[in-house]
Amino acid sequence: MAQPYRLTATQALALIRENKLTVESYARSLLSRIEYRDATVKAWAYLNPEFVLEQARNLDAIPVEKRGPLHGLPVGIKDVIYTKDMPTEHNSPLYKDSVVPVDAAPVAVLRAAGALIFGKTTTTEFASTTAGPATCNPHDPTRTPGGSSSGSGAAVGDYQVPIALGTQTGGSTIRPGSFNGIYALKPTWGAISREGLKVYSLILDTLGIFGRCVEDLELVLGVLGVSDDVEAGRKSFEGVKGAKFGVVKTIVWDKVGKGTIAAMEKAAEILRSHGATIEEVELPPEFDNMPAWHAAIMAGDGRATFLPEYRVDKSKVAEFLVGHVENAQGYTRAQQLAALDGVGFLRPRIDEIAGQYAALITPSVPDEAPVGIKGTGSAAFCSMWTVLHTPVVNVPGFQGENGLPIGVSLVAPRFRDQHLLAVAKEIGEIFSDEGGWKSSL
Amino acid sequence: MAQPYRLTATQALALIRENKLTVESYARSLLSRIEYRDATVKAWAYLNPEFVLEQARNLDAIPVEKRGPLHGLPVGIKDVIYTKDMPTEHNSPLYKDSVVPVDAAPVAVLRAAGALIFGKTTTTEFASTTAGPATCNPHDPTRTPGGSSSGSGAAVGDYQVPIALGTQTGGSTIRPGSFNGIYALKPTWGAISREGLKVYSLILDTLGIFGRCVEDLELVLGVLGVSDDVEAGRKSFEGVKGAKFGVVKTIVWDKVGKGTIAAMEKAAEILRSHGATIEEVELPPEFDNMPAWHAAIMAGDGRATFLPEYRVDKSKVAEFLVGHVENAQGYTRAQQLAALDGVGFLRPRIDEIAGQYAALITPSVPDEAPVGIKGTGSAAFCSMWTVLHTPVVNVPGFQGENGLPIGVSLVAPRFRDQHLLAVAKEIGEIFSDEGGWKSSL
Repeated sequence: MAQPYRLTATQALALIRENKLTVESYARSLLSRIEYRDATVKAWAYLNPEFVLEQARNLDAIPVEKRGPLHGLPVGIKDVIYTKDMPTEHNSPLYKDSVVPVDAAPVAVLRAAGALIFGKTTTTEFASTTAGPATCNPHDPTRTPGGSSSGSGAAVGDYQVPIALGTQTGGSTIRPGSFNGIYALKPTWGAISREGLKVYSLILDTLGIFGRCVEDLELVLGVLGVSDDVEAGRKSFEGVKGAKFGVVKTIVWDKVGKGTIAAMEKAAEILRSHGATIEEVELPPEFDNMPAWHAAIMAGDGRATFLPEYRVDKSKVAEFLVGHVENAQGYTRAQQLAALDGVGFLRPRIDEIAGQYAALITPSVPDEAPVGIKGTGSAAFCSMWTVLHTPVVNVPGFQGENGLPIGVSLVAPRFRDQHLLAVAKEIGEIFSDEGGWKSSL
Repeated sequence: MAQPYRLTATQALALIRENKLTVESYARSLLSRIEYRDATVKAWAYLNPEFVLEQARNLDAIPVEKRGPLHGLPVGIKDVIYTKDMPTEHNSPLYKDSVVPVDAAPVAVLRAAGALIFGKTTTTEFASTTAGPATCNPHDPTRTPGGSSSGSGAAVGDYQVPIALGTQTGGSTIRPGSFNGIYALKPTWGAISREGLKVYSLILDTLGIFGRCVEDLELVLGVLGVSDDVEAGRKSFEGVKGAKFGVVKTIVWDKVGKGTIAAMEKAAEILRSHGATIEEVELPPEFDNMPAWHAAIMAGDGRATFLPEYRVDKSKVAEFLVGHVENAQGYTRAQQLAALDGVGFLRPRIDEIAGQYAALITPSVPDEAPVGIKGTGSAAFCSMWTVLHTPVVNVPGFQGENGLPIGVSLVAPRFRDQHLLAVAKEIGEIFSDEGGWKSSL
């Protein structure tokens, strides 16, 4: 048997169910991996190995018939998400050592299902800036792991934990997914409660889930209660052969780099070679407003969101967020409303467009992870889908000119999350076999 | 001087500023009022008089030049809103004695401005059911004070505190406003951060503010950072004389009782006698979907929201909320999206319609507060405006056949909150003089 830390969640839980692995020994293996790698990757904002092992032993002591569907699943939690037994610091000096003794909604659901809440992963300040924490990309420590879910992406990519939770307001889940060579799911907005996650924008903020295979994401998504309509009036996915995919370049295509251009072309070529039809989708011109609308909504919501921290001590708040509160960009309420309403009109339209395809395919990021950890990269290709509320999954498999991973995004209509993962599962296996990138960790 | 507990916030803060009243003596007066009335009204879920006085003395010790704009303002906080130094129990056995040591966003802002966070006011379970707490209507203890912000409405109506915070997902602020004969403001959705307020539906939940005069609401709203566009392209309000008001009966007019019919007629008559024009507004037929859409959104969001409590121990969750999680009404995702998108299309339309008037006038409630405290009354006339995100203010001044207060709602386009309060201020004085109801407390 491989060392437990290398197992996917699905594999590990099966071994635990079969009494071939204890939760404690699984946790020990992950902790060893972390001990070996932490000085390089620095994915954790809070990790107490003794406490992890104590929880693991408690789980091992639960009688088999009382175990939940995620019994023993170690989960890393982004440090903007409340955990009742650990601090939540938001990478902000205002919340140093702050412990909120309730679980955020998704943490409570996972814990009730038997998950082992492992520790807190690093984030940019309030998951709201692009100034990176100390975390490094596990595939090349001179590079960013992305953000704002920096630690969650890096920890899963580095085999330190099989599943981690993050958030996305711009591209904070999909981008670290791509940079760390793993799967990352931004589910349909509103499908999972975001109670207990630090707010940036209520209309944008979405829980994100990281894993190293689609089965693991399906497992967690199911426990979190997300399900498609059983009869959605559409034929369920019957395989890549004969399926139709839509390639969407979007208005920000000028931001694309060589690596992603190559990945998108290769993805299309591979899918065609497996019998799929690929069409380029030209979105109606109203969608060209999307980057500006996303920015207006984020600024308008940020103006209200960070007022408390600003009033308590603005000297301890990032300049960018102070700018939101002071409305440095001078947005009017009319502009804020035009953005909110404009996007509202386009949500059913993108559902209709995406519904004509097995999935839309669009870039996750401009290119492989950039050098340096001060900035966490661009959310240009993600923010549109965040505000449109569609589910998005990053599928890894390609690489840039420096050998670092690049993923592509699959998009489905809202509340077609299960469908999207079914598509991603088959495509992901193909990309893994033929895309050219495999993790060397 | 009147006993301090009878002062409005504006009056009390002026006296404190002029060194004619200490925060401690003001707090003592309110505590005496509560001591005298609490066995009847039962507005408080948590109140520690010694702690209140300690905070008051601390405020009195602050040098004048370091005092905030709300220095010494006592505020009651609905018990679904986090306060760092008090429990937050949500009227749920699952959260008995739960203390979350952070302030919700509006609490933090008020506290930073010098407010005295006084205690926690009663609520229905999670502010999400209509099963009342033990709180009674101060004007007639055999009747409900409304809900879910039961304690906040009753405490302000009973002169136990000048200002209180509540929430509204259906009619939980406007309804207790009407039943308790006070002003109640539901600001534009998104204008104030709702971080740290228990979630029911992100797209519906809105902070509410209770007060006994409009100046007090203006004061608090200003500190909470809500402001209209300076140049909104509309003439600012220049008085009732010559102004045009639109009366909106809405699709739920069949739920109206005699008391509210009379209040609406009298309101129109009084405004006409002061030189205003009153027009009946027939909303386009799409607005007839509003009650069904509100219900679909609440059920769809409630399905995700209460999953954690359901998984932890569903036997301790209200049957109505269990029904949300189990999707007892069988809503499809398609219905949920149709409701979300349908309302999204109508928000700019209602802004346009409301923008043609100084304000829309519509019922707050079917009638005066019903007898009994088990149910908190109907939200029929409120829920449409909640989901449309417009600001609404309950203006008291009328009464039902049992002499209990009835208010009417004024509605303005989104982010015209300051305008709305300016209108409410003049109208409220007129209604108070001529409407026929005055508090006998």
